[in-house]
Amino acid sequence: MCQLLGMNCNTPTDIGFSFAGFRRRGGLTDHHADGFGIAFFEPSSVEGAAAGSHMGKAGLRLFYDDKPSHCSPIADLINHYPIKAMNVIAHIRKATQGKLCLANTHPFVREVWGEQWAFAHNGQLQSEFIARLPNVSAQYQPVGSTDSEQAFCYLLNRLKQTFDALPDDATLFAFLTQICRELAGQGLFNCLLSNGRWQLAYAGSLLFYLTRQAPFGQATLADDDLSIDFSEVTTDNDKVTVLVTIPLTSNETWQQLAVDECVVFEQGSKVFADRPDAPRYLSIDEGIAIARRVGASV
Amino acid sequence: MCQLLGMNCNTPTDIGFSFAGFRRRGGLTDHHADGFGIAFFEPSSVEGAAAGSHMGKAGLRLFYDDKPSHCSPIADLINHYPIKAMNVIAHIRKATQGKLCLANTHPFVREVWGEQWAFAHNGQLQSEFIARLPNVSAQYQPVGSTDSEQAFCYLLNRLKQTFDALPDDATLFAFLTQICRELAGQGLFNCLLSNGRWQLAYAGSLLFYLTRQAPFGQATLADDDLSIDFSEVTTDNDKVTVLVTIPLTSNETWQQLAVDECVVFEQGSKVFADRPDAPRYLSIDEGIAIARRVGASV
Repeated sequence: MCQLLGMNCNTPTDIGFSFAGFRRRGGLTDHHADGFGIAFFEPSSVEGAAAGSHMGKAGLRLFYDDKPSHCSPIADLINHYPIKAMNVIAHIRKATQGKLCLANTHPFVREVWGEQWAFAHNGQLQSEFIARLPNVSAQYQPVGSTDSEQAFCYLLNRLKQTFDALPDDATLFAFLTQICRELAGQGLFNCLLSNGRWQLAYAGSLLFYLTRQAPFGQATLADDDLSIDFSEVTTDNDKVTVLVTIPLTSNETWQQLAVDECVVFEQGSKVFADRPDAPRYLSIDEGIAIARRVGASV
Repeated sequence: MCQLLGMNCNTPTDIGFSFAGFRRRGGLTDHHADGFGIAFFEPSSVEGAAAGSHMGKAGLRLFYDDKPSHCSPIADLINHYPIKAMNVIAHIRKATQGKLCLANTHPFVREVWGEQWAFAHNGQLQSEFIARLPNVSAQYQPVGSTDSEQAFCYLLNRLKQTFDALPDDATLFAFLTQICRELAGQGLFNCLLSNGRWQLAYAGSLLFYLTRQAPFGQATLADDDLSIDFSEVTTDNDKVTVLVTIPLTSNETWQQLAVDECVVFEQGSKVFADRPDAPRYLSIDEGIAIARRVGASV
């Protein structure tokens, strides 16, 4: 347990500024000091990416470390060797279930119909539910011992049992929303999921997002004395959505997802949303209290 | 196409010395300058590993870069931030098939019955064979466009079609040897494959190995002016096997695998070998000539 950070863009983008703030929560400004992981989906070639959507299979680069993200040499590398990606999912961990080891470090990755899918979870599922999950003969089986990887495998097994091939986006997103709601009915379930093209976010409690586009302005990190003027590092066509458990900047307006809301972004734009009819929004304090109550943490 | 480097040990070991020589072949002492990848299987905890074999699921750390390994900042990190692993598979690439992108970078990884399996290939399979591979409805499908990832998926699909669960080691290794022979019948096929516990090596042309154990001595890299006295960095119980396409050191005796020989190492020891009745050994020059003839490179 954990905090989540995601990014989805229409042009290869360096997540360095957001990651600089986020990684400080891994032991410095917050207590998520039990390692971190980050998955970068990179375009198959920069030229292909510039041409727009559906640029073919994305390459995936993964970094894990069991050291706290604020002082990890691997996190240093990520800040000093900017990797331009179309999609990023990062996760800092405060271990509550599953011992501290690499096999339990998010994001988890599986190949699904010839695509790499990456998944990170913030929450805690009921142990009775996890114990009931059938997995001995299932196609996807967990490697580590977390409820999160069990949930990811459950989602993928249900997907493969339901469809013979990757369905169209509308069908897929509706199906994934249904499975996320089912998992959220079994505990606390916030997640980010990406196939490199789209990024899905499901809020069981706390999840915020922000879409940056022209005219770009200045942003100041909430966790560090660091500002950036995005107009100096972007073009007018750039569109970048950042998703995070708790807002990363102090001077921008973050959109909150309602409890049990599911959204999907592609090329930085929201392309799917399923919000409960009577949306309910938690305060950050309420979200933290809920996480503590189920033995998780935010 | 490519060169391979593998390591299998009975104690978590830093591959830094071998990697320091190997990475220079990525653009400096040889022409494999189209990126590199390395997979580290780390014990779930150092204490568990010290207790010996079968220490549970290994964690996997993967590094890929499309920069030449001799000058890659990620390769620098690997040399400066020693990662102690029980199993390592590394690959430097000279692209001959599949364009230069991360999705085509070895090692490839898939989850198999709740284990991570990593695979790297050196060779070139006939395009007619690759084109015939059925994969639309198969469980494992390639993400990139290399013959190598196709071969890996073929091997895993055959495995899952043949067994309902992971068979015992003897049955498994015999089966994997059979599939490797089948693939080697369709082109040039050298590979390294590991589940984190064992490491399998199949030689279609060139593959060498060396087992270091007490009494440890000094080793000098063939590709750099660098020596190490292993007796200063080891204990008497350590056993470390290194596998590589072309020997890495100039003052040690490397064992060569015969053409079509398959071996498996666990805890640094050879636990399985299947060598043709009339073993044939290629000189390095012959191996390079064969690779060139099929449009590959060594």
